[in-house]
Amino acid sequence: MTATSRTSTRTAMLRHLLQRSELSFLMEAHNGLSAKLVEQAGFEGIWASGLSIAAALGVRDSNEASWTQVLEVAEFMSDATRIPILLDGDTGYGNFNSVRRLVHKLEQRGIAGVCIEDKLFPKSNSFVRGGTQPLADAAEFAGKIQAAKASQRDPDFVVVARTEALIAGQGLAEALRRAEAYRCAGADAILIHSARSDANEIQSFMAEWGDRLPVVIVPTTYYRTPTEVFAEEGISTVIWANHLMRSALRAMQLTAAKIFAEQHLRNVEDTVASLAEVFALQGEDELAEAEQRWLPQRNAPRP
Amino acid sequence: MTATSRTSTRTAMLRHLLQRSELSFLMEAHNGLSAKLVEQAGFEGIWASGLSIAAALGVRDSNEASWTQVLEVAEFMSDATRIPILLDGDTGYGNFNSVRRLVHKLEQRGIAGVCIEDKLFPKSNSFVRGGTQPLADAAEFAGKIQAAKASQRDPDFVVVARTEALIAGQGLAEALRRAEAYRCAGADAILIHSARSDANEIQSFMAEWGDRLPVVIVPTTYYRTPTEVFAEEGISTVIWANHLMRSALRAMQLTAAKIFAEQHLRNVEDTVASLAEVFALQGEDELAEAEQRWLPQRNAPRP
Amino acid sequence: MTATSRTSTRTAMLRHLLQRSELSFLMEAHNGLSAKLVEQAGFEGIWASGLSIAAALGVRDSNEASWTQVLEVAEFMSDATRIPILLDGDTGYGNFNSVRRLVHKLEQRGIAGVCIEDKLFPKSNSFVRGGTQPLADAAEFAGKIQAAKASQRDPDFVVVARTEALIAGQGLAEALRRAEAYRCAGADAILIHSARSDANEIQSFMAEWGDRLPVVIVPTTYYRTPTEVFAEEGISTVIWANHLMRSALRAMQLTAAKIFAEQHLRNVEDTVASLAEVFALQGEDELAEAEQRWLPQRNAPRP
Amino acid sequence: MTATSRTSTRTAMLRHLLQRSELSFLMEAHNGLSAKLVEQAGFEGIWASGLSIAAALGVRDSNEASWTQVLEVAEFMSDATRIPILLDGDTGYGNFNSVRRLVHKLEQRGIAGVCIEDKLFPKSNSFVRGGTQPLADAAEFAGKIQAAKASQRDPDFVVVARTEALIAGQGLAEALRRAEAYRCAGADAILIHSARSDANEIQSFMAEWGDRLPVVIVPTTYYRTPTEVFAEEGISTVIWANHLMRSALRAMQLTAAKIFAEQHLRNVEDTVASLAEVFALQGEDELAEAEQRWLPQRNAPRP
Repeated sequence: MTATSRTSTRTAMLRHLLQRSELSFLMEAHNGLSAKLVEQAGFEGIWASGLSIAAALGVRDSNEASWTQVLEVAEFMSDATRIPILLDGDTGYGNFNSVRRLVHKLEQRGIAGVCIEDKLFPKSNSFVRGGTQPLADAAEFAGKIQAAKASQRDPDFVVVARTEALIAGQGLAEALRRAEAYRCAGADAILIHSARSDANEIQSFMAEWGDRLPVVIVPTTYYRTPTEVFAEEGISTVIWANHLMRSALRAMQLTAAKIFAEQHLRNVEDTVASLAEVFALQGEDELAEAEQRWLPQRNAPRP
Repeated sequence: MTATSRTSTRTAMLRHLLQRSELSFLMEAHNGLSAKLVEQAGFEGIWASGLSIAAALGVRDSNEASWTQVLEVAEFMSDATRIPILLDGDTGYGNFNSVRRLVHKLEQRGIAGVCIEDKLFPKSNSFVRGGTQPLADAAEFAGKIQAAKASQRDPDFVVVARTEALIAGQGLAEALRRAEAYRCAGADAILIHSARSDANEIQSFMAEWGDRLPVVIVPTTYYRTPTEVFAEEGISTVIWANHLMRSALRAMQLTAAKIFAEQHLRNVEDTVASLAEVFALQGEDELAEAEQRWLPQRNAPRP
Repeated sequence: MTATSRTSTRTAMLRHLLQRSELSFLMEAHNGLSAKLVEQAGFEGIWASGLSIAAALGVRDSNEASWTQVLEVAEFMSDATRIPILLDGDTGYGNFNSVRRLVHKLEQRGIAGVCIEDKLFPKSNSFVRGGTQPLADAAEFAGKIQAAKASQRDPDFVVVARTEALIAGQGLAEALRRAEAYRCAGADAILIHSARSDANEIQSFMAEWGDRLPVVIVPTTYYRTPTEVFAEEGISTVIWANHLMRSALRAMQLTAAKIFAEQHLRNVEDTVASLAEVFALQGEDELAEAEQRWLPQRNAPRP
Repeated sequence: MTATSRTSTRTAMLRHLLQRSELSFLMEAHNGLSAKLVEQAGFEGIWASGLSIAAALGVRDSNEASWTQVLEVAEFMSDATRIPILLDGDTGYGNFNSVRRLVHKLEQRGIAGVCIEDKLFPKSNSFVRGGTQPLADAAEFAGKIQAAKASQRDPDFVVVARTEALIAGQGLAEALRRAEAYRCAGADAILIHSARSDANEIQSFMAEWGDRLPVVIVPTTYYRTPTEVFAEEGISTVIWANHLMRSALRAMQLTAAKIFAEQHLRNVEDTVASLAEVFALQGEDELAEAEQRWLPQRNAPRP
């Protein structure tokens, strides 16, 4: 946040992360708690992952949760933090008009931007069943981007256009064609997604794309590629897309197995966060002070 | 579940857990994902913890989330599992009439029971600021229990009455007086809560209480007491009340710190659940089969 | 309800309305209040109109409200009544999988059935801009019907398949072809929609269709056709689709204009329902009794 | 809006209505549709009535709907209009901390102000069972007002303190004492409520109160008092508190009865709003234009 003042809005902060020359990182979160932890770790921005939010809710990454249920998750994340949040808005949950409404609701909730992808509603996850679902018509998707940009009220609100052309097996030329169409439609950045275990596709894309617009990547499958390579290629922003959810999943699995097997908590107590940490994260101190200020003592907890 | 048939309803299953002579365990969950993990670990029932749900949402355990927001979390948990869920219903979120509405909504969502406590709305967590918030009038709280029991439609739906008398410093006699009043009001079980680091209070309570009604405990602070002691005292059910949330918190904290410091995923990849595991937990296989059955191939993802 | 017992479930009641030889009527409602009024007027069933719900919320009939927001409206309607409710489920809010989830949620909320139509999500209203939006692929829509029927848990839950073929200008043969495909897919009834000001299309349809499956109509535009004609044609059920919303709109418009102009209430008081009627409809008597039973007098309102 | 510019925020507009010397009027609405009608009638502000919202939802005016359900209704109202909305926030739905959260959420949704009353949660309506429910402790309620004022981000957001002292039978002195305490706590206006059929109590209050702070009244029961009297007494704002809901109720009742009896629509058609009016109110024209702009024609409805 070096170049933005402390009083920057979250939208301006996110815009800065995308536009600065230095590589930026967004860390996934999926609820208020994980969002707070991302902020406390020092990250400058949050990726509100559709996959992680769905997984945490207990549903599939196929728009089983309604868009207002996702919105509510995002709102809790926004309330819990001060750094900017980029929402993974899937396909925009419908057509251009759905996107207009979404943008308005996100701005109200303090979400700094939305990323929408050129697939059909309801979507499937890019990594399941080969990811080869049909793509949206490029012109129709460009219309969504235009509508999103036309409906935002805060000029700094960010709209990222994500193309699934590579994952859908449509090749580099189509990916570039779509990226360019979305740029012309007004997108603030392009997210180019790849399901390969190396970054070759991404590098080919960058070689052609140049610096027409900031590029965002999600190296979930090509995590072995050194981050320096991304910087050298001129990538703007790297999203660590689902690792807190996957980390929580594994930890809860192990903890549940241990408690189930041992029927006691003694060997678990020191491996989990203390209640004091939980209360601190929740901001119990602020509430205690507020009670002193605004709750007459006959109504307050006794000392 | 030995004594209940496979076709038992979840309410009957929870009732059986409370009433059988063998010690039962409920493991905390706070969203659909953690609920699934509790079930997969082998537990017979889930404690939908108010503290954990609030912490996961990113708010305080002071009824900052509305009761319908909590209800929605519980619904996702119910949809994700088959084992019974006992909801930590705080004070019932209002008066007797609030509780009636709550019970109806929980039954619709497939929640097997609710636990309500004799504090005032909005509550504070029992472990913050000494826990010494004022208690509800015992007769008023008994009315809530009566109203809850009178409004349930499934006779097996469970209402657990939780007394905070010990935590509020009102002593054993008051705890027993309240437990007895709640038993007379129709409660299916008594949750006796203690914030001590040993189980002395609980043991004193059990010595007087006998087997008037099943007793539920939450040994979060007296976790060092061997579980055998609980069995010997005649406890019905032990709740491991918040350990999955605390486990997830610690794991996400460490993972976020590692990724922030290293700026790559290579050392994290093997410590987190794989995407394949995530998809399996979400039931992507079932969806793939369903697409085969109900989605004509021209609309389906290409192979 | 002549042929169904007083203890019939709402799903059985709706099924009966569709299947009996006598003509049935469903009256539109759009919130809990209007649903109660439909019931009090003597109607045997409620049409939870998508248009009316959208209009009452203040949005367009183009899926601007999310499906869970519509679900919540339906839940309030269900809680407020005992007669069966058929939800106008638009296109099912997505694909076959969206419909499966919808059916489960509707069953939980006590909704007796859902009607889905063969248009694309997000839909437009059939009466705007000529109604000539593209239709869904018939096979894909039949898959939705199959999925809906396969996912219902209560065998009496009703799925009505609505075809927009006539409104889309695709002619009688296509309407019949689609209706037959939806019948084969398991639909419990066919809703054949027409935007003409006479019932000719409907009569032509009925002449070919016969009694293959109960037929539901919505004579909003052909309201001049005598109801006897519908009975003679063998129609099962007539939906009065949006007239309470339109009635409320006009009344509120006039009342607002009058109060605005006169700056007092004196000439309005006798034209609006009394507060006593409002309280009676809300069930304040039941609450007063319940307070006597369950709220100790020191907590209760003073006499 | 004579004295405020066209670009005024809604909060500034509401503040102006309260503070100007001329008498102001707020007209009740309870959903997006009625809110639009209030605006179209020419009113400068909307009273989002708790009673009317509850009645429209089909529940009682006893906080049976959760505060987030009420918030969602208010959000639809805000989205549907441009004039300021004052939400009837009952008791604030809990304690001072609940009020802080409420204020933040209302500001996000574009609600211009909130009115909270000095009763206990869950409340009862002031006109049922004599209205004689216990009042909140005045100091505790003043703390709520202080907390509300301290948490608003827009300095123009309005907090109205409503005292039920007269309705609770506690007399003029107590009403004045409470009003003064709430004024000192930072309230922007005082709502003095009376259930009498004349305005004597109100006049006595005004005689003592003077112009210490703008006063808001709700002449539901003393509707026969000429409005000029209110102006002469120095009242700031008159709320017509529930007449659109009551108007809609009566109209729907009559329309339902007529259709039920006649089994046709012919005599109803001309008494209800036309579909064209409904579509116009919903803004279908704007959507048609937007489709021209942003929806490529191969995806658009055919002409």
